[in-house]
Amino acid sequence: MKTEIMFKNIKAFVFDVDGVFTDGSVLAMPDGDLLRTFNAKDCFAVRMAVDNGYPVAIVTGGCSQSIMHRAASLGVKARDLYQLSRDKRPDFLRFCSDYDLQPSEVVFVGDDIPDIPALREAGLAVCPSDAVTEVKEACNYISPFQGGRGCIRDIVEKVLKMQGKWHFDPTAPVSANYPDHITQLSKKTGRNV
Amino acid sequence: MKTEIMFKNIKAFVFDVDGVFTDGSVLAMPDGDLLRTFNAKDCFAVRMAVDNGYPVAIVTGGCSQSIMHRAASLGVKARDLYQLSRDKRPDFLRFCSDYDLQPSEVVFVGDDIPDIPALREAGLAVCPSDAVTEVKEACNYISPFQGGRGCIRDIVEKVLKMQGKWHFDPTAPVSANYPDHITQLSKKTGRNV
Amino acid sequence: MKTEIMFKNIKAFVFDVDGVFTDGSVLAMPDGDLLRTFNAKDCFAVRMAVDNGYPVAIVTGGCSQSIMHRAASLGVKARDLYQLSRDKRPDFLRFCSDYDLQPSEVVFVGDDIPDIPALREAGLAVCPSDAVTEVKEACNYISPFQGGRGCIRDIVEKVLKMQGKWHFDPTAPVSANYPDHITQLSKKTGRNV
Amino acid sequence: MKTEIMFKNIKAFVFDVDGVFTDGSVLAMPDGDLLRTFNAKDCFAVRMAVDNGYPVAIVTGGCSQSIMHRAASLGVKARDLYQLSRDKRPDFLRFCSDYDLQPSEVVFVGDDIPDIPALREAGLAVCPSDAVTEVKEACNYISPFQGGRGCIRDIVEKVLKMQGKWHFDPTAPVSANYPDHITQLSKKTGRNV
Repeated sequence: MKTEIMFKNIKAFVFDVDGVFTDGSVLAMPDGDLLRTFNAKDCFAVRMAVDNGYPVAIVTGGCSQSIMHRAASLGVKARDLYQLSRDKRPDFLRFCSDYDLQPSEVVFVGDDIPDIPALREAGLAVCPSDAVTEVKEACNYISPFQGGRGCIRDIVEKVLKMQGKWHFDPTAPVSANYPDHITQLSKKTGRNV
Repeated sequence: MKTEIMFKNIKAFVFDVDGVFTDGSVLAMPDGDLLRTFNAKDCFAVRMAVDNGYPVAIVTGGCSQSIMHRAASLGVKARDLYQLSRDKRPDFLRFCSDYDLQPSEVVFVGDDIPDIPALREAGLAVCPSDAVTEVKEACNYISPFQGGRGCIRDIVEKVLKMQGKWHFDPTAPVSANYPDHITQLSKKTGRNV
Repeated sequence: MKTEIMFKNIKAFVFDVDGVFTDGSVLAMPDGDLLRTFNAKDCFAVRMAVDNGYPVAIVTGGCSQSIMHRAASLGVKARDLYQLSRDKRPDFLRFCSDYDLQPSEVVFVGDDIPDIPALREAGLAVCPSDAVTEVKEACNYISPFQGGRGCIRDIVEKVLKMQGKWHFDPTAPVSANYPDHITQLSKKTGRNV
Repeated sequence: MKTEIMFKNIKAFVFDVDGVFTDGSVLAMPDGDLLRTFNAKDCFAVRMAVDNGYPVAIVTGGCSQSIMHRAASLGVKARDLYQLSRDKRPDFLRFCSDYDLQPSEVVFVGDDIPDIPALREAGLAVCPSDAVTEVKEACNYISPFQGGRGCIRDIVEKVLKMQGKWHFDPTAPVSANYPDHITQLSKKTGRNV
């Protein structure tokens, strides 16, 4: 009941990366970079939120060009991507203030200890089913889906459906900021990205 | 019963990529490219379809050199690979018209919201067992296998077996268009690819 | 009973790659190359077989520098790596003849249709638990483990234990042919690879 | 009971890589390098141990620049990373002696045959739930979690909680030695890594 009302009041989304957008796996590269595996169904949901006008932020302790590109392709604005965030609470609050939102109007989705201070501020504190115990205790809603396996799709779809915004228009322009190799191909083929 | 008759009428295949050829995972690279993990058993089935003369198309919202090469290696013609396809219905219909086929003679396999308009046109609408609810409702046949874990093998093998075409000839020439490093090795070793 | 006697007569091993050394996943790269994920426990078993003097071959329809290096690191001789092998039976028989072995003294492990002609020649025909039905029907022994998840470890360990050869000597020299970056580091650090 | 007392006496950690930090998967690259997938929750635990002053070593038969960078980012000192370690017992004993520790005060976590001699020396011998039988028999504590899926988090969290050291301070400086692309970004953005 209480969470249903919370779902209806949500105006923006904030996501952790490792264990939320992903299953927590990082592929260690020879140069020290860490690459992540994202989920197409989760990413589709984030794009639906962005295309329907919801501000979306990504707050992660990680740091990689690959995250920057992924965020941009999902339509997340550069200033709303917080990398190297060890202390996630002030980053969460700054995002709220940037959009003149109350923390009570924003979802935060996290899965591990460093997410707890931000989860405590959020109007709706959400975690995947495989979050650590301390995080589960700090959350209003535990998704039945694991990180990287549908927990983002679950929460975004729930919020947008409750607010009558879960509609896909295949002909609408998208908010994404694609990498060069895609925008170039788009110009060559005349396809609208 | 009804689906069995449909299987017998099928003359061509159209596949979505993310969640159908794959489990929906995309590996985010530093340059913004997304890499996908394909399944050898699924790929074997697609090659069997191509080698037996069935037109095969790939229609995806994604875009990557890696998909282009994968499609070519499976024997899918360049013009039958539709990347950056947000609106999949017209792409599906163009493929049918290119081969003088009725949509009712073609399978479409998809797993998420953007596939639904094309699935509604297809003679046989198929999805993996982990497709989203709305897609399952739009399908004639829900494979017992997940995306990237055998759903393509399942549907191709079913159609080819019903039509008496599931035969592998190890000595026959293949329709694939291999990348340079393979064709060069082939010349050096005298092996027939 | 019958398979136990077969295990005792085995003098060499032949492995398919996709679906045997791996779970069938191939990561499609932008240049058309396909990268595979191997399993450390399976690889340890292959090295044990090589270090104990068993000839080992790898026979695959695939083709990649990455397979060549992996085979060399496991101690498989260059001439015993058969890439681009669509017709696996003659490659299997050539390996047997190269080592003056009867096919009845050699294990072949495969998982899909193209492996069947070679499996029919082998003294012990083995497949992982997730092989296709036709392959299971052609095998003497179906491992309880999946491809890339222990089926190679299972069969090698069984054969070597029955023949009293499953001993690891951490101080013995290894038969592996390591890539340059490892042998160079080895020289710098004085460590024996 | 006995293991609880052991947990209270532990002063340092030694981890194998393949099958412990990872699920045993190695991605074979074209140049012969092997890339591994680490787990964010396990890595967080290792950083907690390092930040709380516990010496941590990594002892692996593998060898890759990627492991070197991953170890450094977790705060593991260069001299405490033992690559190309086929004989792990002397490497384990050297680490103990470098820190004036008795082997009885150190955890060793391993999963396969080459780890057994070191496990026999360690005060607390630990393995993931999917270790091989011989290793399980040599261990005091079998984690309920698999390699790469939480076994490191489990053992580190247990030890630190029993010793009252499981506290995360988001504002404290970290012991990690980050790769260049992170420290450069850190300088640009003024963020503290």
